[in-house]
Amino acid sequence: MGAINYSALSSAELNGLYLELQGRFDEYKNRKLSLDMSRGKPCSEQLDLSLGMLDAIGSNDSLKTKDGSDSRNYGGLDGIAEAKELFAKILEVSMNEIIIGGNSSLALMHDTISRAMVHGLYSSKAPWGKLPVVKFLCPSPGYDRHFAICELFGIEMIPVEMLPDGPNMDQVERFVREDAGVRGIWCVPKYSNPDGITYSDEVVDRLASMETKAEDFTIFWDDAYTVHHLTDNPDRLKNMLAACKAAGNPDRVLIFSSTSKISFSGSGISVMAGSENNLNYFRKQLAVQSIGPDKINQLRHVRFFKDTDHIKAHMEKHAAIIKPKFDTVFSILEAGLSGRQIAEWNKPNGGYFISLNTLDGCAREVVSMASEAGVTLTKAGATFPYGKDPRNRNIRIAPTFPTPAELKTAIEILCLCVQLVSIRKLLADKG
Amino acid sequence: MGAINYSALSSAELNGLYLELQGRFDEYKNRKLSLDMSRGKPCSEQLDLSLGMLDAIGSNDSLKTKDGSDSRNYGGLDGIAEAKELFAKILEVSMNEIIIGGNSSLALMHDTISRAMVHGLYSSKAPWGKLPVVKFLCPSPGYDRHFAICELFGIEMIPVEMLPDGPNMDQVERFVREDAGVRGIWCVPKYSNPDGITYSDEVVDRLASMETKAEDFTIFWDDAYTVHHLTDNPDRLKNMLAACKAAGNPDRVLIFSSTSKISFSGSGISVMAGSENNLNYFRKQLAVQSIGPDKINQLRHVRFFKDTDHIKAHMEKHAAIIKPKFDTVFSILEAGLSGRQIAEWNKPNGGYFISLNTLDGCAREVVSMASEAGVTLTKAGATFPYGKDPRNRNIRIAPTFPTPAELKTAIEILCLCVQLVSIRKLLADKG
Repeated sequence: MGAINYSALSSAELNGLYLELQGRFDEYKNRKLSLDMSRGKPCSEQLDLSLGMLDAIGSNDSLKTKDGSDSRNYGGLDGIAEAKELFAKILEVSMNEIIIGGNSSLALMHDTISRAMVHGLYSSKAPWGKLPVVKFLCPSPGYDRHFAICELFGIEMIPVEMLPDGPNMDQVERFVREDAGVRGIWCVPKYSNPDGITYSDEVVDRLASMETKAEDFTIFWDDAYTVHHLTDNPDRLKNMLAACKAAGNPDRVLIFSSTSKISFSGSGISVMAGSENNLNYFRKQLAVQSIGPDKINQLRHVRFFKDTDHIKAHMEKHAAIIKPKFDTVFSILEAGLSGRQIAEWNKPNGGYFISLNTLDGCAREVVSMASEAGVTLTKAGATFPYGKDPRNRNIRIAPTFPTPAELKTAIEILCLCVQLVSIRKLLADKG
Repeated sequence: MGAINYSALSSAELNGLYLELQGRFDEYKNRKLSLDMSRGKPCSEQLDLSLGMLDAIGSNDSLKTKDGSDSRNYGGLDGIAEAKELFAKILEVSMNEIIIGGNSSLALMHDTISRAMVHGLYSSKAPWGKLPVVKFLCPSPGYDRHFAICELFGIEMIPVEMLPDGPNMDQVERFVREDAGVRGIWCVPKYSNPDGITYSDEVVDRLASMETKAEDFTIFWDDAYTVHHLTDNPDRLKNMLAACKAAGNPDRVLIFSSTSKISFSGSGISVMAGSENNLNYFRKQLAVQSIGPDKINQLRHVRFFKDTDHIKAHMEKHAAIIKPKFDTVFSILEAGLSGRQIAEWNKPNGGYFISLNTLDGCAREVVSMASEAGVTLTKAGATFPYGKDPRNRNIRIAPTFPTPAELKTAIEILCLCVQLVSIRKLLADKG
């Protein structure tokens, strides 16, 4: 068909096109496929890259940490020194500004919100649970699990527009300056989920220095994709803790990260970074919650990854596996959707997602139609607070987990669905 | 000196004895020892018993779980089937009545209380944080970390007397019947910390069936030492979940346990058991907190321990290492303190502690004096809510971690301290 601008077609032409595309869609449907593209999960080949970690600590290896303590026993509340050292380098903070957690940075974030509700944060005058209302700014599209935490704790979510260099800072600055109820913001500042955007230096500086009405306004800085580059020319993110310190707001940010998409998704290690004031406050509460995270697994990670150079090399192997998958998606989207004025998508330099925007009002129908043909996508709306995409247009594509063949089929089906639903919309608009 | 009843001695005799004992104490003091007996930690030889587990999963082993899923990836919110199966057998519950957690059952308990405060429990009419007061019954002496959780969340603790077959049930029944503020009770029902008491069937049944004023009164059943026997004639604990079901109160109990003192203290797996109603309620909240615990470590445990018979055999090896340590303590206490009417202690069939009661009013001084000679004991009072032992007499002895030689010296010093402080008290009482 070539790249025809659909809105320039007549109703008759659109109907003809629709029938042809519908026939192709039905063929796919008859194949009774079952392809899951819903979550940003590494594929099996990616997980194989870390298999050597399982041999990094055997019964004949020393289980002593650098400081001579036995990693097998109790203790080590906030992590072993060598794990802190490694993460401190990755996140460009000092060793005292790091807490190592269990296998889930999501749990660190959830638990931080939970502590804020019950006990308050370091800078809080009162626990959030005692306040009349707690609100979070949610740059959207964003990460659905952040939004789920807010829902669980009854935190009101305020969507903020995402621009090509991060959240719309004019909106952000106004909300935090005027509304004391606004206590936090969720950020995935590098290769954002799902847009793949990295915040500009200006956005970082404005977040760090803006005037906030709430005394304990906190930036939840989910640096999940900090070393997850897809190109040789990776994005660079300005150091947020340093920016907050420079702006005189050292306690404003909590940084989260993990190895879930570096080593094993279920068996990685997580990390929280922030000012010593913030972390010492949490350490006191952590001491009541647990006697410390799994130190053998920390040792396993440190012995396998050694240093930041090895992690860089390891991430290049990940990229070698998943970059072609991203490219597959781009070329199919290009062939199926470009020039037709019915969809737009980003081309990130890293991370795990491709964010596809359809014509307004079409996303839910596209996802549901894809599902009829056996392709499970992230639920439409999931990338917005309360699952409500105001323009009903954003679809998150997670290309890493499927095999290349599955991915190709799934994206072909997705393209067909976008075309079909768009044509229906254009026809309806014509009346 | 033989076993003389100290209270039968004259002041002159006591003074003479004091000088002799003081001389021996000073000799120890001059040795500048540093012996830590403060926590119930396994010793290095015990941890060696599980070294094979580190080889149970290497890069050449299958990482698939029984149901075919990849243990390395995300998913498996409440544990892999084979881990649930193993723990279901140990705790005598069904597989749907089990959630596998991370490396810390303490974290499961802390998080449960935190959820109760913010969201309420399955049977709650309101979150505990919205109630005017929340109280917990604390059979004492008990586990200091339970009490620390209550303090962190502002839960008022009511001490309940421990009898030889469990908490004083007349007291317990009266509190829960009359006071709607009483929302829970902490229990270490088998080889209790520190008394080594196992609750009788009658106590279990009364806890399960008693009338409670609070709709969501919950028994926190910390079955930490369920397979931790020291003799061939182990205590038997009645199945609490079954008892609750039989009494028509299936949602009353939450059971906690872990492998922290079976495999590696820092790298074990934890478990929560309870009614399906309770667990399904928690599963919904867990799904927001995390994408699931470390499944590779679960697989490692299941492949190494295989089944309950292997765990039994493994625990016998633990007992072979630590039983002689308990015996060392008994024989030194016997030689140094028995017959003198100045101290009593228990002889548990399992668990990790020996509970020593001095004359009223002496414990704090004994612990502080031992510390002068380089012996760190659990802080006096720690086994009671708010650290306040009303009779100031209970000292928790944790014999597992020190070497046999260290242990011998530490207990000899402890005995001297008990004798010296007791004589001072007896002299003071004589005026």
